[in-house]
Amino acid sequence: MNIGIIGLGLIGGSIALGLRKYNFGDKFIGTDSNKENELHAIQLGIVDDIIPLQDLIIQSSVIILSIPVNKIENILSNILNQISMDTVILDTGSTKYDICNRIFSHPKRSRFVATHPIAGIENSGPISADYDLFYKKKCIICDSELSAPDAISTATEIYSIMKMRVIYMTSKEHDLYISYISHLPHVISFSLANTVLKKFKNEEKIFNNMMGSGLNSTTRLAKSNPETWLPIFISNRNNVIQAIDFYIDHLNKFRNYLIKKKFHQINQYMKEANNIKNKKYV
Amino acid sequence: MNIGIIGLGLIGGSIALGLRKYNFGDKFIGTDSNKENELHAIQLGIVDDIIPLQDLIIQSSVIILSIPVNKIENILSNILNQISMDTVILDTGSTKYDICNRIFSHPKRSRFVATHPIAGIENSGPISADYDLFYKKKCIICDSELSAPDAISTATEIYSIMKMRVIYMTSKEHDLYISYISHLPHVISFSLANTVLKKFKNEEKIFNNMMGSGLNSTTRLAKSNPETWLPIFISNRNNVIQAIDFYIDHLNKFRNYLIKKKFHQINQYMKEANNIKNKKYV
Repeated sequence: MNIGIIGLGLIGGSIALGLRKYNFGDKFIGTDSNKENELHAIQLGIVDDIIPLQDLIIQSSVIILSIPVNKIENILSNILNQISMDTVILDTGSTKYDICNRIFSHPKRSRFVATHPIAGIENSGPISADYDLFYKKKCIICDSELSAPDAISTATEIYSIMKMRVIYMTSKEHDLYISYISHLPHVISFSLANTVLKKFKNEEKIFNNMMGSGLNSTTRLAKSNPETWLPIFISNRNNVIQAIDFYIDHLNKFRNYLIKKKFHQINQYMKEANNIKNKKYV
Repeated sequence: MNIGIIGLGLIGGSIALGLRKYNFGDKFIGTDSNKENELHAIQLGIVDDIIPLQDLIIQSSVIILSIPVNKIENILSNILNQISMDTVILDTGSTKYDICNRIFSHPKRSRFVATHPIAGIENSGPISADYDLFYKKKCIICDSELSAPDAISTATEIYSIMKMRVIYMTSKEHDLYISYISHLPHVISFSLANTVLKKFKNEEKIFNNMMGSGLNSTTRLAKSNPETWLPIFISNRNNVIQAIDFYIDHLNKFRNYLIKKKFHQINQYMKEANNIKNKKYV
């Protein structure tokens, strides 16, 4: 069984390494718009062969689309046109509604499974790929009633093999929730990075001297790849705007307490935030 | 030489463990307003003896004040009254201006060294103490010209022994810069935690299922202890308000780009934020 990976970056590369480690599939073939990624993918043993997209589509039993969400939207319908009814294709994009919407009426819609393995890190490219990236994390499968049972089964097997827990919801729910869980934290982190870079623009030495672990964790996501993230923000624009607004309301609440010296309320605000301790992280 | 630790939490406990490991000082004595902390400090080998504050002040050659900044402000003058001119006292608070200001005219001002080892983590208490907490991190010494050279020398030795790099600045500069490097990231993190906890209040299962590593890093600081942080926000109120305002300006910039579909500017915004990669983290 050939596994075709379209997009040999962090996610595509990690899925290939994970599946190889757990002996899922026989031959791994791949393609990437970036020639350097293709070279690295061969060197790192992510895929056996680099082959043209058209050949990959025809030769693969399972196709994994791990490219930016706008590119998934643009290419998916065309890929569906060419595959047989035995092929399974899944994407790994961080937004799901637009992708599902675009192919809603496609005659081969049932061969597609919309998935989002929640495991991104700020690094990108095949050199960051890790067979263990998905270990004990969650994968969301969206609008599963629109996929054929055998396609869902294959997708579930792929993620389960890599020790992920699979969760089901609609693509609309996914995009709303993920705007808070992932997209908002990225906006916050990009904005904090720009705030401190601007503030310390002429005081670089002091900045380098003072960087502490607090800023390190809160600006981690600010290192994320714009090529991945711009299409996500565009695709999930309305939800992200609402999440930012809800967040600014909270920031202003803290700010007003501080301005009005409502220190008891600040204490309460922090105690409530402390409850995040009790949440299970994946 | 007796080392007296007032406040046996994360910072005081870690300093004691660090100094013991590197054979600085002979006997470690401590006190804490929390009896459980005192018990743990003995059990964990942080100090040899728990003794009353008044005895500790008289018996110690070096006193380390590692308690919330408001308590440092309240107690420092009184301690200076009682020590000899051979004793060195240093604090570890996250704000420095108010503390230094309060004892500016004290006749024994020169025995005090205002320090801030930048190494806090979200955990607290002696059970989180670690001899290695300060390894390769930075310690800021403020207003050093107001401390006696021998006192500065002792403080520098203490932090250098634990492999920290010591940096000098005024307490006013410290409080301004640290409001961006540490206090703002805490406000941001507390606020993000409250935003998502509120949003998912009635959908706890979905929240737990979807928590990804992005939210994990950006809400890490939201687990911080309000008892430590309220006094910091009070003491550095003006700087923190300005930092929040500057940050909200940046958030709004991103938000407006998204509303107006200025996607090229969003791309540029993320690319600029990516420069945080090039900063040296301690």
